[in-house]
Amino acid sequence: MKQAISEIEHELRDVEDIMSTDDEDLKMHGFSEWSSVKLDTLPIAVAYPRNTEQISAIARICHKWKVPIIPYSGGSSLEGHTAAPFGGVSMDFVYMDRIVQINEDDMDVVVQPSVQWVDLNEKLKRMKTGLFFPMDPAPSAKIGGMISTNCSGTNAVHYGTMRDWVVNLTVVLADGSVIKTRQRPRKSSAGYNLNGLFVGSEGTLGIVTEATLKLAVVPENYSVAVVPFNTIHDAVSAATHVIRKGIPVAAVELMDETQMRIVNEGGTTRPRVWKEKPTLFFKLAGSKVMLDEMIQRVKGITESHGSEDFEFARDEREQTLLWSARKESLYSLLALRKDGEEMWNTDVAVPLSRLADIIVASKEEAASLGINACVKGHVGDGNFHENITYDTTKPGEFEKAKTAVKNMVRRAIEMEGTCTGEHGIGFGKKEALELEVGSGTILFMEPRESV
Amino acid sequence: MKQAISEIEHELRDVEDIMSTDDEDLKMHGFSEWSSVKLDTLPIAVAYPRNTEQISAIARICHKWKVPIIPYSGGSSLEGHTAAPFGGVSMDFVYMDRIVQINEDDMDVVVQPSVQWVDLNEKLKRMKTGLFFPMDPAPSAKIGGMISTNCSGTNAVHYGTMRDWVVNLTVVLADGSVIKTRQRPRKSSAGYNLNGLFVGSEGTLGIVTEATLKLAVVPENYSVAVVPFNTIHDAVSAATHVIRKGIPVAAVELMDETQMRIVNEGGTTRPRVWKEKPTLFFKLAGSKVMLDEMIQRVKGITESHGSEDFEFARDEREQTLLWSARKESLYSLLALRKDGEEMWNTDVAVPLSRLADIIVASKEEAASLGINACVKGHVGDGNFHENITYDTTKPGEFEKAKTAVKNMVRRAIEMEGTCTGEHGIGFGKKEALELEVGSGTILFMEPRESV
Repeated sequence: MKQAISEIEHELRDVEDIMSTDDEDLKMHGFSEWSSVKLDTLPIAVAYPRNTEQISAIARICHKWKVPIIPYSGGSSLEGHTAAPFGGVSMDFVYMDRIVQINEDDMDVVVQPSVQWVDLNEKLKRMKTGLFFPMDPAPSAKIGGMISTNCSGTNAVHYGTMRDWVVNLTVVLADGSVIKTRQRPRKSSAGYNLNGLFVGSEGTLGIVTEATLKLAVVPENYSVAVVPFNTIHDAVSAATHVIRKGIPVAAVELMDETQMRIVNEGGTTRPRVWKEKPTLFFKLAGSKVMLDEMIQRVKGITESHGSEDFEFARDEREQTLLWSARKESLYSLLALRKDGEEMWNTDVAVPLSRLADIIVASKEEAASLGINACVKGHVGDGNFHENITYDTTKPGEFEKAKTAVKNMVRRAIEMEGTCTGEHGIGFGKKEALELEVGSGTILFMEPRESV
Repeated sequence: MKQAISEIEHELRDVEDIMSTDDEDLKMHGFSEWSSVKLDTLPIAVAYPRNTEQISAIARICHKWKVPIIPYSGGSSLEGHTAAPFGGVSMDFVYMDRIVQINEDDMDVVVQPSVQWVDLNEKLKRMKTGLFFPMDPAPSAKIGGMISTNCSGTNAVHYGTMRDWVVNLTVVLADGSVIKTRQRPRKSSAGYNLNGLFVGSEGTLGIVTEATLKLAVVPENYSVAVVPFNTIHDAVSAATHVIRKGIPVAAVELMDETQMRIVNEGGTTRPRVWKEKPTLFFKLAGSKVMLDEMIQRVKGITESHGSEDFEFARDEREQTLLWSARKESLYSLLALRKDGEEMWNTDVAVPLSRLADIIVASKEEAASLGINACVKGHVGDGNFHENITYDTTKPGEFEKAKTAVKNMVRRAIEMEGTCTGEHGIGFGKKEALELEVGSGTILFMEPRESV
């Protein structure tokens, strides 16, 4: 591995700080406090390429010396995607953070992997394009990782997931060769769908060095509605009912009573105090006329599922206020952690009709194990997150968390669901993936290894 | 090859008529009057499997004897997808036409490859599910082929393409092994996106024997608007303007003045006589309130692009009438063909801002070549079709058609577009694909052949 590094340093000697072997740097890239998987290995170097050619050179040399490369962008993944089990080179795209081209008339944008999606949207807003990029994962997420895990977030029920928004990718393959998946048509049936193959492949098939993404039109108006229910089943039935009525909501999110309590305790949304009940958050978008009608309809439906308390935002200030509980949910959890406590944040997805059942079963199990867990769901997609907080100083707590996650995943698979709706496999869910799709499908994904 | 067939016949001797070598049958499967490619080879047998196990057995035996298999469902593809250049076995799924399971609460459906999408939608309507499958290719298209070519049609601007609607696939691989890509979650980031890989792979990676598809909610109401313009540029600008305003139209289709004339001449929509101008057809869907607003807005925008003649449907009868020109466009063309005339129907897609330019350039070239061509476009996606009618009895006519198609494809690629937006590559566009994505990308798609 050292030989590979010195060869890279030699070949790219004109590039300042192309490689780092600084201890802090290695730790920052190989270890993640967010991750469900904490390995005790680190990369042996971090590469800081500035362009596709340099990445190609690094890949060529690493290929020759059989040194693994671990692409790194936002570092906010949850299943150990940036871990370095075999050492190797972590490749940080921090210097490749340019918005290369905004094609307003074509409604697309060309970006480098280290562009943060929130910055992209800021820029599109500042330029008054009337366009935005509608994926909505953690604010720290960057395009490279978002492609890698096929991210989505709260907007997926309306806008789909990352793979629906990729027009083309420039990819450096393992041996250093460079391919571009397509040109810039918004729609194509030409050849294998390589976009769809690389999106979600978690860096295992190649390194994405540039991407063209579709943009969507910013809705004229938004509103937010917050609706507490008596039970998880009521909330999920109401959400499903809204979707089955074809009401084009921009997002519908569930937070359970525990998560609502945590937001109250976290205090970041004060002076507002939330009802500590299973609660739906609707984001509504469209013309004023559409919004008024949607609000009336959603209100009618939620009432028919036992909610007596429908609140909607009349202006932007109220929108921000009402959405704040959803937005602050993770930060409230993090802020309330005591010394020695860690958080396990995981997701699964199931067919719509099974969502309430699996949420309730998972909550019951967490309660019977005596661990702290709360639930947030992208209910329109049958996808939800369980956040488990456990005390690393108490013996057996980590094992309990592990049991809860493992059983939730098993349950999702038994319900014909998936071990992850949006976080990806990483190292945390390799076994779960095999349980989900079977060894034949794994063998097709990874034909050289016998499973 | 004969050995393979007798081995299949022996192994599946209990299945009635599993193989046919009847001349008519071979011709029906290997030759297509729709196709841009007419080879003088035929398959040496047609297989009629009843289930995945039989397909697996046939694949295993064909693999052993190196006999190609050509999957066959609706037979309406346009680029020679069902042709048999090396003989082999055409595999017709006609006995696998079952809707296996409708999961109304999960908004999905499990189907066999020979289900016709129009029949599926009929059944969903009859059962009053309030759901439908929103892809909209030729009415004769079947699910197997629709998956194979990543089909779409008029609804794509709102609903996306086939790959967005596949939940899982059961696939028989070349060696006869059977995999299932996923279970039934509507959203997943687990493992490689094999759905996206098989969709659009045109039968080259495996044989799809069963699919689970997402369903959409049937809109409460529809309307149709028909708007003639003075020029193609005006029509395309108006369509783009509507999209950039975020007006959620269900479809927006363009037909040029020639296509409008042909519909008049075809007479299938009589007594209605259409203006023979470039015309936009809007399909609008939603609540009554939404429809009223959309109609007003679309009217305002089209007027600002020089249209003086906005017509919209007030009821279902008028909808059918107004949409009829779009629907009958291909049949009118076919009906008006004279003896010896054939039709070449091809498609390309370009970035939105280039659509009007390429349509105009392609029409001008057809005119200068003196051939009959008309244009239909899925303008919201930058995708359009050119239908060329040529006289096979006149020397040089076929070559002219070929020149027109070749140049249109070249032009699309020069504009950063694609050689096909929805029809696929087949045999007709293999060279165009390489021109479009380059030899490196082709090599990644097909690593064993040096290109």
